[in-house]
Amino acid sequence: MCEANAYLFKGDKEELLMERVDKVVPQNGEVYLESIFGQRKTLAARIKELNLVDHRIILEPIQTETAD
Amino acid sequence: MCEANAYLFKGDKEELLMERVDKVVPQNGEVYLESIFGQRKTLAARIKELNLVDHRIILEPIQTETAD
Repeated sequence: MCEANAYLFKGDKEELLMERVDKVVPQNGEVYLESIFGQRKTLAARIKELNLVDHRIILEPIQTETAD
Repeated sequence: MCEANAYLFKGDKEELLMERVDKVVPQNGEVYLESIFGQRKTLAARIKELNLVDHRIILEPIQTETAD
């Protein structure tokens, strides 16, 4: 099985969002994740990078508020 | 090794872009792909869907021209 773990990139740290993700669907400023265990999650983010050999999916939050 | 194949989605067919992709980086309307063999490719596309258990990365071309 070749699923990967999904992490949320937060500058100096990464937060584990979901383990053993099978399906990833980016759509309208959101990313839908589904694991091999049937867990599902949708969040306001974009895909920053995939490293499949390392089993890593890195997502980056989309800022909905404006900040200086 | 858990890399996947990258396909370009073209409506009723899919075109194989690269085999055994390790790294995928979407950036500024383009997607950079790198295989475990060191092949590299950048194209005007976005990620449509990942199916990691099936080893599939589906990209969708970004239309740069306007069409009715």
